[in-house]
Amino acid sequence: MSSQCEQDARRPIGVFDSGLGGLTVVRQIQATMPAEDIVYLGDSARVPYGIKSPRTIRQFALQDAAFLARFDPKVIVVACNTASAVAMDALRRHVAVETVDVVAPAAAEAVRVAKGRPIGVIGTEATIASGAYGRAIATLAPAVEMIAAAAPLLVPIVEEGWAQDDPIVLHVLTRYLHDLQRVRPGVLILGCTHYPLLAEAIGKLMGPNTRLLDTGRAAAEQVRRHLTSGGGARRGGQGTLRCFSTDNPDRFAALAERFLGRSAGEVGWVGTDELAAAGHGAAEI
Amino acid sequence: MSSQCEQDARRPIGVFDSGLGGLTVVRQIQATMPAEDIVYLGDSARVPYGIKSPRTIRQFALQDAAFLARFDPKVIVVACNTASAVAMDALRRHVAVETVDVVAPAAAEAVRVAKGRPIGVIGTEATIASGAYGRAIATLAPAVEMIAAAAPLLVPIVEEGWAQDDPIVLHVLTRYLHDLQRVRPGVLILGCTHYPLLAEAIGKLMGPNTRLLDTGRAAAEQVRRHLTSGGGARRGGQGTLRCFSTDNPDRFAALAERFLGRSAGEVGWVGTDELAAAGHGAAEI
Repeated sequence: MSSQCEQDARRPIGVFDSGLGGLTVVRQIQATMPAEDIVYLGDSARVPYGIKSPRTIRQFALQDAAFLARFDPKVIVVACNTASAVAMDALRRHVAVETVDVVAPAAAEAVRVAKGRPIGVIGTEATIASGAYGRAIATLAPAVEMIAAAAPLLVPIVEEGWAQDDPIVLHVLTRYLHDLQRVRPGVLILGCTHYPLLAEAIGKLMGPNTRLLDTGRAAAEQVRRHLTSGGGARRGGQGTLRCFSTDNPDRFAALAERFLGRSAGEVGWVGTDELAAAGHGAAEI
Repeated sequence: MSSQCEQDARRPIGVFDSGLGGLTVVRQIQATMPAEDIVYLGDSARVPYGIKSPRTIRQFALQDAAFLARFDPKVIVVACNTASAVAMDALRRHVAVETVDVVAPAAAEAVRVAKGRPIGVIGTEATIASGAYGRAIATLAPAVEMIAAAAPLLVPIVEEGWAQDDPIVLHVLTRYLHDLQRVRPGVLILGCTHYPLLAEAIGKLMGPNTRLLDTGRAAAEQVRRHLTSGGGARRGGQGTLRCFSTDNPDRFAALAERFLGRSAGEVGWVGTDELAAAGHGAAEI
């Protein structure tokens, strides 16, 4: 008979995002902890979250987490920077599962790497407006200069699938990075799960002295530390990935490979009505 | 005592869209029929519809229409091209109110104006993929050449608020209009309610021989004909506008002026949970 620890270790890791972008976080978790089973929910029917209000984002995030909770996960990773920036308090209050966000681990890693040099962050409108990265960094390193820029067009550009050396892509990036280039930060946090797909172009524009920080990698490392210290890590074998989407699962499956680096397998569908019925109403938040 | 006709005339016109864009249609209705009361719903919490699947769009559209039906409207205008392209059959089957879409009136107007010359259309991914404009035009003018292009980045660009002579805006438009420019259509249908805000730039790129067609104007004209012929038009006085948003009503109010040309007044909030509970489940569609 297996011990309680072994039984706990077999529980999956839950991951959610507003859409496909969180699969870049799944990719990092798989690279760091290949034995873990993962259940992923992409809320593609209501994507994007980054242009919406904190109240709406919190409501959607609670519903996403409530869906994942059905799989009895040992931890839920909030792979969406926007939800991480505005919904963590609500999630920790309402969801009885340990949660890991992508903002706090990235902020800590940025402070470590920047060594006192300025830290830059780009993200969605809602992420930047929340000031979450600024607060997280100020707590750890109050003297560090911080510069943030919202970059609303980058998600639709990534979803267009245009190449990183496409003149329009470079032109848009140049505009968003203008102030950041002048400050020459030691680290630039790619504060949205879509942005790693533009890392090459962003890296060229920022130059070799700015290190780009993939928030998914920092979050995966945080999950690994959490599971290892709590004895909940799974050892040996090859973990599975089970994906759900609130919109057309076929389209999700077709696009997933670009984010995941390999096939996502069969994708299940769950309606937003079902999420809303099972999750938390706006009045509670 | 007022007659049945007069009582009917006092009922409002319902209008819905995925977000703010449908206010360009409201603007046309107000210009054509200033005496009419209008109730508007913008589903800003789930915007945009144009990147989502027909199933999801139909479900959201049915919920939007069910919300408007509470106000006992004499007609519901589907001000969203994407919903007009994929959800009209479902709406006519499930909603017991006369509906006017923006695709059919624009297609008829395009055929009339083009006089046998090619007709172009730009729209969201879902609108173009549906082929709804092509079918509507082929029914009216089977011999007319038709060319369609999806232009996914235009909605986020309009919402960025960049000027029409902005180099990035012109660069993106030039790419999307490339094939259309070669065909030199007699009419270009602006098949998304956001696009009239880029009409000046699009007009310059297409040249003076291509007439741009605002789908909101054609739909407003269709509503006027419908109400006039049915005796339901309201005469005299100044109509009111009452707006609802599923996301932050303050943000909606702040941005509305660009689309409406004047203030939208106080904006009410209605949650998507409430829409889902009152509307149709996915299983029925």
